[in-house]
Amino acid sequence: MVVEVKEADIAPSGGASPGEYGERLMTLVRELYPFCRSLTGDGVRQTLQALRRLIPIEIHEVPTGTQIYDWRAPQEWNIRDAYVKNAAGERVIDFKKSNLHVMGYSEPVHARMSLQELRPKLHSLPDHPDWIPFRTSYFRRDWAFSLTHRQLLALEDGEYEVCIDSTLEDGSLTYGELYIEGSQPDEVLISTHVCHPSLCNDNLSGIVVAAYFAHILRSTPRRYSYRFVFVPAQIGSLAWLSRNEGKLHNIKHGLVLVALGDDGDLTYKRSRHATAEIDRVVEHTLRHAERAARVMDFWPHGNDERQYSSPGFNLPVGAIMRTPCGTFDQYHTSADDPTFVTAAALDRSLRWCNEIAATLEGNRTYLNLNPKGEPQLGRRGLYRTTGDRTGGGKVKEMPILWVLNLSDGEHSLLDIAERSGLPFLEIRAAADALLECNLLQLCDTGAARC
Amino acid sequence: MVVEVKEADIAPSGGASPGEYGERLMTLVRELYPFCRSLTGDGVRQTLQALRRLIPIEIHEVPTGTQIYDWRAPQEWNIRDAYVKNAAGERVIDFKKSNLHVMGYSEPVHARMSLQELRPKLHSLPDHPDWIPFRTSYFRRDWAFSLTHRQLLALEDGEYEVCIDSTLEDGSLTYGELYIEGSQPDEVLISTHVCHPSLCNDNLSGIVVAAYFAHILRSTPRRYSYRFVFVPAQIGSLAWLSRNEGKLHNIKHGLVLVALGDDGDLTYKRSRHATAEIDRVVEHTLRHAERAARVMDFWPHGNDERQYSSPGFNLPVGAIMRTPCGTFDQYHTSADDPTFVTAAALDRSLRWCNEIAATLEGNRTYLNLNPKGEPQLGRRGLYRTTGDRTGGGKVKEMPILWVLNLSDGEHSLLDIAERSGLPFLEIRAAADALLECNLLQLCDTGAARC
Amino acid sequence: MVVEVKEADIAPSGGASPGEYGERLMTLVRELYPFCRSLTGDGVRQTLQALRRLIPIEIHEVPTGTQIYDWRAPQEWNIRDAYVKNAAGERVIDFKKSNLHVMGYSEPVHARMSLQELRPKLHSLPDHPDWIPFRTSYFRRDWAFSLTHRQLLALEDGEYEVCIDSTLEDGSLTYGELYIEGSQPDEVLISTHVCHPSLCNDNLSGIVVAAYFAHILRSTPRRYSYRFVFVPAQIGSLAWLSRNEGKLHNIKHGLVLVALGDDGDLTYKRSRHATAEIDRVVEHTLRHAERAARVMDFWPHGNDERQYSSPGFNLPVGAIMRTPCGTFDQYHTSADDPTFVTAAALDRSLRWCNEIAATLEGNRTYLNLNPKGEPQLGRRGLYRTTGDRTGGGKVKEMPILWVLNLSDGEHSLLDIAERSGLPFLEIRAAADALLECNLLQLCDTGAARC
Repeated sequence: MVVEVKEADIAPSGGASPGEYGERLMTLVRELYPFCRSLTGDGVRQTLQALRRLIPIEIHEVPTGTQIYDWRAPQEWNIRDAYVKNAAGERVIDFKKSNLHVMGYSEPVHARMSLQELRPKLHSLPDHPDWIPFRTSYFRRDWAFSLTHRQLLALEDGEYEVCIDSTLEDGSLTYGELYIEGSQPDEVLISTHVCHPSLCNDNLSGIVVAAYFAHILRSTPRRYSYRFVFVPAQIGSLAWLSRNEGKLHNIKHGLVLVALGDDGDLTYKRSRHATAEIDRVVEHTLRHAERAARVMDFWPHGNDERQYSSPGFNLPVGAIMRTPCGTFDQYHTSADDPTFVTAAALDRSLRWCNEIAATLEGNRTYLNLNPKGEPQLGRRGLYRTTGDRTGGGKVKEMPILWVLNLSDGEHSLLDIAERSGLPFLEIRAAADALLECNLLQLCDTGAARC
Repeated sequence: MVVEVKEADIAPSGGASPGEYGERLMTLVRELYPFCRSLTGDGVRQTLQALRRLIPIEIHEVPTGTQIYDWRAPQEWNIRDAYVKNAAGERVIDFKKSNLHVMGYSEPVHARMSLQELRPKLHSLPDHPDWIPFRTSYFRRDWAFSLTHRQLLALEDGEYEVCIDSTLEDGSLTYGELYIEGSQPDEVLISTHVCHPSLCNDNLSGIVVAAYFAHILRSTPRRYSYRFVFVPAQIGSLAWLSRNEGKLHNIKHGLVLVALGDDGDLTYKRSRHATAEIDRVVEHTLRHAERAARVMDFWPHGNDERQYSSPGFNLPVGAIMRTPCGTFDQYHTSADDPTFVTAAALDRSLRWCNEIAATLEGNRTYLNLNPKGEPQLGRRGLYRTTGDRTGGGKVKEMPILWVLNLSDGEHSLLDIAERSGLPFLEIRAAADALLECNLLQLCDTGAARC
Repeated sequence: MVVEVKEADIAPSGGASPGEYGERLMTLVRELYPFCRSLTGDGVRQTLQALRRLIPIEIHEVPTGTQIYDWRAPQEWNIRDAYVKNAAGERVIDFKKSNLHVMGYSEPVHARMSLQELRPKLHSLPDHPDWIPFRTSYFRRDWAFSLTHRQLLALEDGEYEVCIDSTLEDGSLTYGELYIEGSQPDEVLISTHVCHPSLCNDNLSGIVVAAYFAHILRSTPRRYSYRFVFVPAQIGSLAWLSRNEGKLHNIKHGLVLVALGDDGDLTYKRSRHATAEIDRVVEHTLRHAERAARVMDFWPHGNDERQYSSPGFNLPVGAIMRTPCGTFDQYHTSADDPTFVTAAALDRSLRWCNEIAATLEGNRTYLNLNPKGEPQLGRRGLYRTTGDRTGGGKVKEMPILWVLNLSDGEHSLLDIAERSGLPFLEIRAAADALLECNLLQLCDTGAARC
């Protein structure tokens, strides 16, 4: 799990070639796949511990019963084994084969019953007879099994031994947090959910991309501080919010990472603000890098962005994903397994994160120090010298002219990229060249303008 | 003319089924059809008196010569009989057969003349040889007859007796007004013109829909006050405006009702403001209820909206109609008769009015009382309890989440409906459910926000 | 060069019929064609002197070395003769045949050399073997010849005599300026570049259209003051700006004129402001007059608009042209000769200038003096008097109603034209008619509103 990180990794033009991180991301997916994560319990702790070999996540425990706004931290659920045995004593449903066989938060049970009695507790998917559905009952005590439809049809009448060796007791809700300090107190919040058991795209993909994103950022010079939270969905983000209200004013941008491993198009779900800087940044990266990409307006459902975006917080948090959850067949079934995610998709998702960070980091506002007319670019090596039709300078001419023209203190580099239609990286390269010539001066102070 | 009204009539989801009011509206059209309405005179009074059996309209008289801004109330015109007799003494044009045969405001005449002398006073429509055109000369003393083109061609040379037994004398201009008080002084103005003789779509349809709309509103709990004016076109609305300047500040929304009985698509002509609340409300009702509908930008012509929208008043008054006046062939001809309007069209138009009122009434602004994160909807019966893919609560989940997310005091329910793309009624139902759970609190004070 | 100018010329509806100015514009193009203009030197002076027969341009000289912001006025370049002679003493390249044969700003040279030595100094266009390319080296001392590719291929090995009889010495940079005073100090800046040698579309077309535009304006009653500058590109406009900073606050609108003689569509390049009054005015003239026209967003390249638009000045200056420079094959080659521009195109371009000026001049804001309801237009002869379907007044009814409706002091006539979708000239005619009836009152004071 030792990873070489180059300083340039954050820059999308250099950095990882397709596949550079892909195999490492896949290896981590496969390692975390068997753990039985849930809203609480040891599966979450195991997962966070495994990530700690890569990044120094702090693990937080919120005791059962703790008030979390309108909610309370639930009892902790752990499970050791579960099965349904037929009259012959054979395990016809076996938790050890797939943790999806047991409904999440199933209370303990050990009983004998007829198939008729058992039947209402068995969930299958007739349309996908080889897949096991993922079910939970977090807020109503219950128990149930999931199984493939073929398994269900094969069950014969008779008596069955039903056992769920779980505990549902006071304990705590567990989440992970990593703060990566930058030169500014302004923070970028990265959130991903860690409460799903053996499901890969939703959301081991989000977990491993977030972990490597954090890993790369730690080795990269940065302006923003980055705060990564690895939380059980909804109640976990609310728990984190409830414990960190005093710090929320620092959060300038945020992203939820989810379902980043399938081969669907890169997809952005806008923040509630719709046109916040994070929205413009992410959309810019898509517009200039992808042949096909999807941008969706905010809606108050989905993942933890719905909590960060509730009116009492109203944080500018968007969500990045590939195929949106709920719109791929494998969603919340055993078919969301390690074959459903690919190294290439994970790698590209990670590079996307890096591109977003590079754009956020580089989006400064400058002042043209020679605002009256164009400066003489030729003698500074920034302009062709003969009046022919081809360029010749070291950097491109149009980005240079755009940066000079709009660097009046009112336009950030992203504003300039958007107005010019040019990629942010070309605009930023032009700004860097002009800074070197003392034709430009930084004009914002962190997030603010001059 | 006794009508049963249920309280729920204002709600478009319940209330009138297609056709519930249709026949009553048609009956009233047929009853009012023969009256010889004009800018002034007994035809208007007869019409208003007939409506008084349904709603307690006050009848106002504005004496001839009264200054009305740049205008004066005209002399009153009444007509008893009119005809053109041929040499054989036969009525070849007979007012008693259709009041359209006489140009509105024709001065009295009784003379004998040759066809050649008479010819310039005869108007017909060569393109529609069986239709009688509707003509008026309100502001220049004159007289004339309208007749079908077939009648015109059949006239033989010879002497004719021409008689218009009309009076054009000092009297008054008549209009009707009905004020329906609501719990707020804020008013919705509903205006329709009553000056056309035997023409059905323009504008008996507007008159009868307005009358039943008023009738239903009187029996419905309401927040807004509603003011209905039944006026001769242009000069009538100006007369009303001139006498009510002190009350105009109460008018928050307004609609002109015209040509609502033909089978064309529902059509909205925006107010001069273009994006006033009435504009957004009416367009929302069209977007979510109609397969085909038309929305037109304001232009300073048309019906009385042009007076309400003059810069000195600038009231937010739109106009609802079906096929716009002037764009159907039957417009201002005898073909705009009771066969041109239908019970179904009139009924649908009336329901549209009710939907508009329901949306206006329900467009309040609320405050989410649990603004930090989502509240626990499950224990309040507002959310599915098992993590499967299908919903299960009593009301729909997405409208609930939208109302919670945007009820920050800055968004009315219509804002939320527009942003979510959901029908207003679903949003309002969600708000009602949340109010019952004390998760929401009313936050505006009438028209204003909190 | 005596030109009859009628006062009505500025009005696009009357004024020049197609071709009225065309031949005079072409004659001037042909007269100016042979002069060897450059960034400095006698060719510019000759050109300005020729224009002085039509308009009283002031000629300004900026001494070599004068600081012009980040630049200095360059040395003055003049050339008397240049050639390449073959061993037989024949001029195989001859400046007297085309001044394009010598790279602009070529330093003097007189030498004998082999074809091999000469070859790097020879520029041709293999794709257009009969055209001579136009080349310059303003800011790096060098010399070179341009020639057709056929000429190049025909050169035989052997010794050549190379002679450029030029001077590159201290002198001055020359530009012309004409101020046409209006009744307001607010100025319209018209700028065109005068630094290209024998090239017609770029930019003799701009020069001659600007000259006749000024000529016509001088004889036309006007509200705005107009300032015409005839400058060498870039350094010339910067020189003018550097000497006139104290007057720039008067410039309310501006246009660069370039490449107005080819038969491409009329094209507008927006100002940096994008929606300044000049942008709206020019786009309006295109929308209502042309079947095909092109509008382009601002970009910080092109002609002198890039200097006027630099952030230290930020003047609202657009550019009008036909086919944009750089997008026609003949651009900067000997094929941009008098056959490439046409009398009809030049004439239409000039009329466009007049239409723009007429719209700017007429774009005032008025107040409806009868704001409550419509005034009685009929008795003022502004409305049909019979209720038939056809109009009948002296001016069109809809523009009258629009002007009345929107003349609340918040809308200029252009605002009204844009909202109504009607041509500015109809709106202005309506305003004129209403002014005559005392129904309207001027409400702005020059550029400001009431």
